Amino acid sequence: MVEMYEENVEGIQIIHAVPAGKYHQKLPTVFFYHGFTSSKELYSYFGYNLAKAGYRVILPDALMHGARAESDHSVLLSHFWRILQNNVSDLALLKETFVARGLADEARLGVGGVSMGGMTTLAALVHFPWVKAAASLMGSGYFISLSDHLFPPTHLSRAAFEAQTSLLLGCDISDKIALIAQKPLLVWHGEKDDVVPFIESAKLKQALEEYNEGANLTFISEPEASHKVSVSASNRTTDFFVSHL
Amino acid sequence: MVEMYEENVEGIQIIHAVPAGKYHQKLPTVFFYHGFTSSKELYSYFGYNLAKAGYRVILPDALMHGARAESDHSVLLSHFWRILQNNVSDLALLKETFVARGLADEARLGVGGVSMGGMTTLAALVHFPWVKAAASLMGSGYFISLSDHLFPPTHLSRAAFEAQTSLLLGCDISDKIALIAQKPLLVWHGEKDDVVPFIESAKLKQALEEYNEGANLTFISEPEASHKVSVSASNRTTDFFVSHL
Repeated sequence: MVEMYEENVEGIQIIHAVPAGKYHQKLPTVFFYHGFTSSKELYSYFGYNLAKAGYRVILPDALMHGARAESDHSVLLSHFWRILQNNVSDLALLKETFVARGLADEARLGVGGVSMGGMTTLAALVHFPWVKAAASLMGSGYFISLSDHLFPPTHLSRAAFEAQTSLLLGCDISDKIALIAQKPLLVWHGEKDDVVPFIESAKLKQALEEYNEGANLTFISEPEASHKVSVSASNRTTDFFVSHL
Repeated sequence: MVEMYEENVEGIQIIHAVPAGKYHQKLPTVFFYHGFTSSKELYSYFGYNLAKAGYRVILPDALMHGARAESDHSVLLSHFWRILQNNVSDLALLKETFVARGLADEARLGVGGVSMGGMTTLAALVHFPWVKAAASLMGSGYFISLSDHLFPPTHLSRAAFEAQTSLLLGCDISDKIALIAQKPLLVWHGEKDDVVPFIESAKLKQALEEYNEGANLTFISEPEASHKVSVSASNRTTDFFVSHL
């Protein structure tokens, strides 16, 4: 049995999933991030699956989502990159909190996510030395080039945008392949993805293969998959953490 | 807190979600069905959301899915209609079981589902007088016409197909609008659905409006949604059951 709690940690609403009866034990912990305009609820099955496999799973709301919802859709759309960056700073806070409470095993911390959550995952892998394993589903870490095409910031000058998202842009993976190559990483992407292009993951694969033959990379592409997590992607994500965290 | 169990009922694996501490109480109960080639896990968030709202939720594997998985994809694809029909007979068994155990309140039983699960829902609404409220997300109940286009049975003659799926085809909603019109029904469909055409739900809406102005119908279309449940669809499903079950 899995227990799933709704909690509020320093203003961030989360779903907190644990194996039955183990809430107060120190457990290996996965932080799992939902996608843009989606919700922690819609991806709570990652909490269910991973808690069933023995993990504590923390699924936070992103800024302007869920309990922090922004009701004006155009405002939401114009803040994609700020919301993504905010996930990274929220993650620092959540990690500190659950380690300080004695609930998260600091030696066994993982991060995962879908779409914007996959981008959060790659930024975290670069930014936080404590990440031991990471799973990016239909994400990207090429933030600088991607921000030209995906939800480009139209209400800001490029200079203002770069100032506002400097933490995130500093996590761009282009020049950090050596760092990424050291950690177990799952990358899943549908080849027919019409939101985050498949090429984003293919580029990362190629870079890791050139660096160390992708020694720590689990790469899964699905020829027919669009921007939607498949049953196989979900199962392989659980298997990946079981093997590497 | 929500408790989520994996159980086996007469050979059918289910996820069984309940509000914390209420496993042994008689509760209003929703049976919720996943879609074709999908899984009960991927839609277990309906279990989480509805259990959080006070319901017992039973999410069964369909035949040839999950614990009953068919490994040959072509075999799976050729049995869509048989699997859908099997959901209906499984539902009878599951309902009997949970009522007999004193866990499901027979006066407050609902059914819901996504895609093939939405079709299961509409068949159940026609077939089982005990269904008090039903939620079909991107489904259809026009089984006879739909089976000409959607996963048409290529390995069988039409006569053999009709013999094999007579229970299901007998639930075709074309001539049962008067019956459907009596019960609270939620229909959600994305207008850009490229798997189950939106017109299937639009047709049902029109028929119910002609019959009794759609008095018991909650119809939600999303202009930009494809074959993927949105956050709003998920929330409105919870609201619907809270209002009508």
